[in-house]
Amino acid sequence: MDAINQNPTLTDAQRIDWLRLIRAENVGPRTFRSLVNHFGSARAALERLPELARRGGGSRSQRIPSEDDARRELEASSRLGVHLIAPGEDGYPPRLAVLEDAPPLLGVRGVRDVSMRPMIAIVGSRNASGAGLKFAGLLARDLADAGFVIASGLARGIDQAAHRASIKGGTLAVLAGGHDRIYPPEHADLLDAILEHGASISEMPLGHTPRAHDFPRRNRLISGASLGVIVVEAALRSGSLITARLAAEQGREVFAVPGSPLDPRAAGTNGLIKQGATLITQASDVIQAVEPIMGRPMALREEDHEPLAPEPDMAERAQIVGLLGPAPILLDDLIRLSGASPAVVRTVLLELELAGRLERHGGGLVSLV
Amino acid sequence: MDAINQNPTLTDAQRIDWLRLIRAENVGPRTFRSLVNHFGSARAALERLPELARRGGGSRSQRIPSEDDARRELEASSRLGVHLIAPGEDGYPPRLAVLEDAPPLLGVRGVRDVSMRPMIAIVGSRNASGAGLKFAGLLARDLADAGFVIASGLARGIDQAAHRASIKGGTLAVLAGGHDRIYPPEHADLLDAILEHGASISEMPLGHTPRAHDFPRRNRLISGASLGVIVVEAALRSGSLITARLAAEQGREVFAVPGSPLDPRAAGTNGLIKQGATLITQASDVIQAVEPIMGRPMALREEDHEPLAPEPDMAERAQIVGLLGPAPILLDDLIRLSGASPAVVRTVLLELELAGRLERHGGGLVSLV
Repeated sequence: MDAINQNPTLTDAQRIDWLRLIRAENVGPRTFRSLVNHFGSARAALERLPELARRGGGSRSQRIPSEDDARRELEASSRLGVHLIAPGEDGYPPRLAVLEDAPPLLGVRGVRDVSMRPMIAIVGSRNASGAGLKFAGLLARDLADAGFVIASGLARGIDQAAHRASIKGGTLAVLAGGHDRIYPPEHADLLDAILEHGASISEMPLGHTPRAHDFPRRNRLISGASLGVIVVEAALRSGSLITARLAAEQGREVFAVPGSPLDPRAAGTNGLIKQGATLITQASDVIQAVEPIMGRPMALREEDHEPLAPEPDMAERAQIVGLLGPAPILLDDLIRLSGASPAVVRTVLLELELAGRLERHGGGLVSLV
Repeated sequence: MDAINQNPTLTDAQRIDWLRLIRAENVGPRTFRSLVNHFGSARAALERLPELARRGGGSRSQRIPSEDDARRELEASSRLGVHLIAPGEDGYPPRLAVLEDAPPLLGVRGVRDVSMRPMIAIVGSRNASGAGLKFAGLLARDLADAGFVIASGLARGIDQAAHRASIKGGTLAVLAGGHDRIYPPEHADLLDAILEHGASISEMPLGHTPRAHDFPRRNRLISGASLGVIVVEAALRSGSLITARLAAEQGREVFAVPGSPLDPRAAGTNGLIKQGATLITQASDVIQAVEPIMGRPMALREEDHEPLAPEPDMAERAQIVGLLGPAPILLDDLIRLSGASPAVVRTVLLELELAGRLERHGGGLVSLV
């Protein structure tokens, strides 16, 4: 039994199994959790994986790393000073650990204690104004002086200013690619400086060069690890607003720095305040808001007890697949329309997912790829 | 009987009485209302005024204008195009009319219809930034285009920008001094331009040069006449924040334009948003917020039925005066501590007020001068 969040540490053999399962094709954090909960362990899930993917209609066999592959990744990571850590283990940001889609193994590099301390994220435009950069630095410095770790994305602009101003207090760089694929490349020196007193984290394997869709995925780690997210400057439809949305969905505080309505770089932050984010003008505004939360125990999510069915029959599977299309549909509607049991529907969806044929959207929506 | 807000128009004789009473020394709008409600008419109150002031311990006789004085003020006002209008009469801003401390007679000049239309106040710093001035102008223009009258204080900076941008749609200048004592003097030309399509109002007699304490008093008219008040730029502890506080006390919407935390001219507006004012970045934000209010009937206050006592005896009066001092005390506490009836306490306070010995603060607090 290696149910997530239950064992304080993994055995070496379990860590190999976990790494093979999370690196298997079409297995994300949610599928990982679903498989381990259903089959009782990563090892048991790995054994059933080829069969499930075949039933889901995979056109070719699913790539699953071997034990040797996993061992090699662990060794290469270790040479770079990266530890692959499970939720609940020392060095795994505690608030991140309790999220439904927490990475089963997180690559943590640098001062491990840093990722365990109370964290505030500071994010914003890459092409920030001078005032924005200055203010991000002031905030980061004051929050670091107050004992908070500043989390950000190592990007140009606001991210960089926030990291630099909090280097001595310990700052956390959250990466979209592997630990050996720093983006932007010219921030390799900044990362080296960060790692002296701080840390970096990534859920991606070594060698993974970040692509566009990796950044929103990474952003959920920035907000998830933090008590709250401060957006310093953001244009409309910018990545920082995605982070703010994810933060709100995760139940994190969202803070926004106001700006003139005539400044397009403030349109996003002013918009956040209109939608209910807390306007802040100084570090104490943030501290005042998060102090009561720090005292509270973290909201540990109820473990999902979503049973899977042994093996859906062909007619059921065909009917469920027939109801799916490229337009997202609610899981609940799918259960209702198909007349099949929830366990059967979930099993068919899992099979399709492992076969690379299903896309999961937010809010219980699914569609065919 | 000429109870306030009950008769649609005053007779000529009543208007003379009302003007004499409101211009009498130590009679403000609240005292005026209290006297008329108790004695049944301004005429009856005028007859009793000397006796009341004497009982309150006035060291010299109270100045009360004669009928000729009042007639001369009406004539001089008329020559300047100023009409002295009572709450409920045509030309008196309807939302202002229902306030407890609405001026019993308001001097209205210009296009009378303008002061009857839905109004939004725009206020802010005299030494505003270029961006602030520009934004005030954009807001005023868009709100005027949407059919709102822009109310402001004819001051330098934001006020001026708001008036200028809404001249064609009709804008309302709310004065702190008499209609013949324009402040600042160099805005006489601006006022002339305003009066072509708009109006100006003042509760002060001709010849009254505005002093520092007249501006906060005037500010209650700006907010009181409006559906809501927009603060465009304001430093901490500025007059615009007083207007915002008055607006909130009067149940008006308070809107604030955000700015950079590094800009001291935005400290006041950002502070207002922290306290619950609505952040706005465009005219439509304001319109959206006030449209539901426009549909609603105005909250007409219950007429205060606060009876006065015939004549408190010397012992009661001495005891109540003994409880008063320079530190403000709550009316309710005064009633409780004195053991006298509310009517007796109110009567003694009215006498003291007419004698110039009492100061009324907000929230039911009173103190000796």
